[in-house]
Amino acid sequence: MTHEPLEARARAVLPDDVYRYFAAGSGQERTLADQERAWDALHLRPRLLRDVSSVTTRTTVLGTEVATPVLVAPSALHGLAHPDGEVATATGTREAGSLLVLSMRASRTLEDVAAAAGPWWQQMYVLGDRGVSDEVARRAAAAGARALVVTVDVPFVARRPSGPLPALPPSAIVEALAGRDPADPRYQQAPDLGPADIARLKELTGLPVVAKGVLRGDEAVRCLDAGADAVIVSTHGGRQLDGVVPSPVALPEVVAAVGDRAEVYVDGGIRTGTHVLRALALGARAVLVGRPVLWGLALGGADGVREVLDDLTASTRDAFGLAGCTSPADAGRDLVR
Amino acid sequence: MTHEPLEARARAVLPDDVYRYFAAGSGQERTLADQERAWDALHLRPRLLRDVSSVTTRTTVLGTEVATPVLVAPSALHGLAHPDGEVATATGTREAGSLLVLSMRASRTLEDVAAAAGPWWQQMYVLGDRGVSDEVARRAAAAGARALVVTVDVPFVARRPSGPLPALPPSAIVEALAGRDPADPRYQQAPDLGPADIARLKELTGLPVVAKGVLRGDEAVRCLDAGADAVIVSTHGGRQLDGVVPSPVALPEVVAAVGDRAEVYVDGGIRTGTHVLRALALGARAVLVGRPVLWGLALGGADGVREVLDDLTASTRDAFGLAGCTSPADAGRDLVR
Amino acid sequence: MTHEPLEARARAVLPDDVYRYFAAGSGQERTLADQERAWDALHLRPRLLRDVSSVTTRTTVLGTEVATPVLVAPSALHGLAHPDGEVATATGTREAGSLLVLSMRASRTLEDVAAAAGPWWQQMYVLGDRGVSDEVARRAAAAGARALVVTVDVPFVARRPSGPLPALPPSAIVEALAGRDPADPRYQQAPDLGPADIARLKELTGLPVVAKGVLRGDEAVRCLDAGADAVIVSTHGGRQLDGVVPSPVALPEVVAAVGDRAEVYVDGGIRTGTHVLRALALGARAVLVGRPVLWGLALGGADGVREVLDDLTASTRDAFGLAGCTSPADAGRDLVR
Amino acid sequence: MTHEPLEARARAVLPDDVYRYFAAGSGQERTLADQERAWDALHLRPRLLRDVSSVTTRTTVLGTEVATPVLVAPSALHGLAHPDGEVATATGTREAGSLLVLSMRASRTLEDVAAAAGPWWQQMYVLGDRGVSDEVARRAAAAGARALVVTVDVPFVARRPSGPLPALPPSAIVEALAGRDPADPRYQQAPDLGPADIARLKELTGLPVVAKGVLRGDEAVRCLDAGADAVIVSTHGGRQLDGVVPSPVALPEVVAAVGDRAEVYVDGGIRTGTHVLRALALGARAVLVGRPVLWGLALGGADGVREVLDDLTASTRDAFGLAGCTSPADAGRDLVR
Repeated sequence: MTHEPLEARARAVLPDDVYRYFAAGSGQERTLADQERAWDALHLRPRLLRDVSSVTTRTTVLGTEVATPVLVAPSALHGLAHPDGEVATATGTREAGSLLVLSMRASRTLEDVAAAAGPWWQQMYVLGDRGVSDEVARRAAAAGARALVVTVDVPFVARRPSGPLPALPPSAIVEALAGRDPADPRYQQAPDLGPADIARLKELTGLPVVAKGVLRGDEAVRCLDAGADAVIVSTHGGRQLDGVVPSPVALPEVVAAVGDRAEVYVDGGIRTGTHVLRALALGARAVLVGRPVLWGLALGGADGVREVLDDLTASTRDAFGLAGCTSPADAGRDLVR
Repeated sequence: MTHEPLEARARAVLPDDVYRYFAAGSGQERTLADQERAWDALHLRPRLLRDVSSVTTRTTVLGTEVATPVLVAPSALHGLAHPDGEVATATGTREAGSLLVLSMRASRTLEDVAAAAGPWWQQMYVLGDRGVSDEVARRAAAAGARALVVTVDVPFVARRPSGPLPALPPSAIVEALAGRDPADPRYQQAPDLGPADIARLKELTGLPVVAKGVLRGDEAVRCLDAGADAVIVSTHGGRQLDGVVPSPVALPEVVAAVGDRAEVYVDGGIRTGTHVLRALALGARAVLVGRPVLWGLALGGADGVREVLDDLTASTRDAFGLAGCTSPADAGRDLVR
Repeated sequence: MTHEPLEARARAVLPDDVYRYFAAGSGQERTLADQERAWDALHLRPRLLRDVSSVTTRTTVLGTEVATPVLVAPSALHGLAHPDGEVATATGTREAGSLLVLSMRASRTLEDVAAAAGPWWQQMYVLGDRGVSDEVARRAAAAGARALVVTVDVPFVARRPSGPLPALPPSAIVEALAGRDPADPRYQQAPDLGPADIARLKELTGLPVVAKGVLRGDEAVRCLDAGADAVIVSTHGGRQLDGVVPSPVALPEVVAAVGDRAEVYVDGGIRTGTHVLRALALGARAVLVGRPVLWGLALGGADGVREVLDDLTASTRDAFGLAGCTSPADAGRDLVR
Repeated sequence: MTHEPLEARARAVLPDDVYRYFAAGSGQERTLADQERAWDALHLRPRLLRDVSSVTTRTTVLGTEVATPVLVAPSALHGLAHPDGEVATATGTREAGSLLVLSMRASRTLEDVAAAAGPWWQQMYVLGDRGVSDEVARRAAAAGARALVVTVDVPFVARRPSGPLPALPPSAIVEALAGRDPADPRYQQAPDLGPADIARLKELTGLPVVAKGVLRGDEAVRCLDAGADAVIVSTHGGRQLDGVVPSPVALPEVVAAVGDRAEVYVDGGIRTGTHVLRALALGARAVLVGRPVLWGLALGGADGVREVLDDLTASTRDAFGLAGCTSPADAGRDLVR
């Protein structure tokens, strides 16, 4: 199952508005267009004559064992893609041995999702009314989330290139906000999101915090200084500030600045095992994928999600083996230039 | 309102000759084609976890307060785009809190425009007969212009790729030359335009002088040495020397050469707030936009102009906020690479 | 006879499945697309006023004289392209004064091919069951192969972009495996292929060993340390790890690392004499071509193979002469940048 | 008159075979495609506030005064483009105040051409039978040629991408070879062309010698050491070794190596005044144009040639003026990057 046919097939089964909602970027969509190309621009340098009879993709993220370094990025409103929404995503992710980062803008209750999930982390938007966010964080901790992923690149939602999105169907309900007016600034992302929010959420739940949306070494350090335990290098799927440095370009700077202090993950345009290999060779502990999971969900529910993840994991295992690399820990800087 | 649809919509309402007159570049139109691409080639590096609850685009240019760093570049013959010509442009610009640089090749008297305008600067061509230019400068000073913008990149008008322009309609009257023969070299740009012209216009009016059309550090210093108070890095909309260094490439060199001696502005291919952010991050005090204002004028007169400027200002404010930058003064070199 | 028409003409006479089998790359086919472009990106710097009345393309590879530095790369299943299969290829190669690297995945017995061939080398896959490979190596030595070319970049076969290949016609018989199940891991490439295999094959046959599929200087040295007598810089026709460094980029690194210790050959996207000249200028002793030989075979059997090789050799001689270079040994680093 | 329409208009009036003969490049036509792009890739850095009331394009080449730095490159068989052949070219070139480099493969006798020409140089191929070349050189000296331009990049003619050229019409007679068999190696370019040929032609005629076809600094010095008085950086219209370094890239290296020892000229893809300005800014004394002259000749005979040259000269004067440069001598390295 390759990238282009997957998206094309999903597009064929999704209502056009929903497809556009998932596929769109912000601004002129430069970042959206740049990401894959930026991975491809890095050339691989395979090792030879290594015994690759047993290649493993198994690793740990914040101490949690996963069968694959390909994790599921948070994305909103899975109910638009499939009636079972995030419950199906959680099921497929668990079956693939991966880890789900559940969006706070989910269609289903986090408790329902948790019941179906393997290991999972809760993505957090810090809202104007901190109480709403804190409530989600507490519920997530109670439901077994192993970490909070605090999105730090959305002080507010960027504008889309062709104005506001089409009206979403009634299924587009954000469970965490149920009963509240999404146009009320209290229930929108907080423009004064700051280091203190990271500290508070961490203290509130006792969970490790992952800062998502980092593109600079100094800003990564700033997140760690605020209490974050890990960072995700991310361009938010090309949906926030348009024209930012592509993740593969930002990644080595962040890895160098963070050193051994924390794990670094990366997302953005990762569509093949050779992309995963490049990311790990550049120092990422794991990667996250967003849209491919949505396409799999749209096409086949939990099974579709599992297939997409299994396929990427198999493609990663192949890339490892062909590069003479036997495990995520074995993926070194020498493999890429 | 995005760039492409805006131009396409304006094209649909303008006579073809007029559209081509506004849209064309000179030579092989390489510079015209390069400009936007050159801005996009610079990647943004957003800051995180800054309080962006109150982002302001307010700044000053030569001491004049403006609500936005997006100023209106001088362009000729607004009467071709709308019956009210520059009066409408001035009105829309004032309503948007911006500043108008009024072309000396305007369709309307500068006094009429001044009456409708907020803060405005008078663009000057130095003509063969200095007396004609000086008369415009004096009238501008009397009518309240706050500065003279002396165009330094037009010792003569460059040739267009497909020969001379089509015959313009009767509305294409340059008010400042009314009653004079535009083919007479005395009423054309002076090929011996020199430092002394800057000094003389400054002394004549007591107004600050801005040199427009600078693309090198040493030439910027030369303008300041001649008495200029500020410079505009500009490729003249791709309508003069074709193949010049794009403004975003020239800007850092000019900023470095000028240092704290003067304000530096920039124009050329700026179509989004992320372009404005890049320009300010590279050291520009403000930017100017030309064609988008003409498209707005053609589509909606003063309202159209205001909408285009408001849209670019809102897009700038978004870009600031998403980059963790709260004001023009806060836009630093770290934001771009 | 130029590259594009040749492939197009061959495509017209081949069954679609067979054409696709020969033409396809792996993954997203990035490497397949990159190779020719990477050669073209290197500019030639011709010498002048040299006497080029007698330009020779004659050289030696591992001591064997060849009339041309353009050798025939191993490729599988020539029986799909022509009823006479590798026997026709061997005949055409001999007539062109070149050297054949016979694939272990040939349609015909190596003894039949040897009877028709001029100088030839036997390509080896090390299989799970070493005995099968060793048997081929012994037969090859007995039949007069002058070297073994051990493929080191296939611990297993990479996946193709659109899933498994179409079912091949009955003529697609790999002679060396006749009577064995190709799905049995014992008869597939060994993922634990290692330095010891090189040493064993060398000792077993007393033949020199060429390691094929090297893209790094350190890995080239590793192959030599394992006993290899020469290396081939190769991207395996874009059919193994996708996204690797193109051969012309890897070649200088390998040449520098190997120094005078061994001969270095190169393949991948070489389609003109100016490509051959670049390769030799960068330090390759000879080049190998794969698909063009298959196209010639499909179009004209032995004659077609000879014509393709003669054409490339003539094009190489022209490139030498026009660059002021009189022989392979005269092709220096100064000729390319 | 711009480049694209000019070629398109000429194509419309020329027999297809003749158009292809003039337009074609060699090999894969990479060099043909690269040349203009390589000039465009250099950005201009205009000076400001210079008095450009009187810009001159007048200069000297080897001491001969010309009204323009745009000279006419040698090209073969003008009789194919116009019944008057090189006589018309010479007339138009003289009327434009330029200098003609007359090809040795002309359709008309050099004496006829000389009678119509202003200042002119004779292009020389050194043939297998030196006597034939020497005879042309002596006749040229007697007829008033002011220099010999010895082509050094054609030890033999490169192959065209689609095999041999179509049969040329009877008008395709090379006058200098009349009565001799063009397939006889004695009447073809000498592959043993060497430094001694430059020395001999110089001594034979007492004329200065210009070496045409240089792309390296060391090779330029080699030509001067052999007795050449000037060199032409040239890719031979993309018709000899394909894939060479583009002239704008080679030019600075040659200029640096030659220093004050000799004049350096350049050709290849020069189509606008801004290209001429770049060439002179990089140190060329003058440029040569080939195909545009042929197109002008095809379209209007002597008048067509004059118009093309006048247009390029006017475009050069404009580029000079807009860059603040008043003469060829004033075109400095600061103008380009």
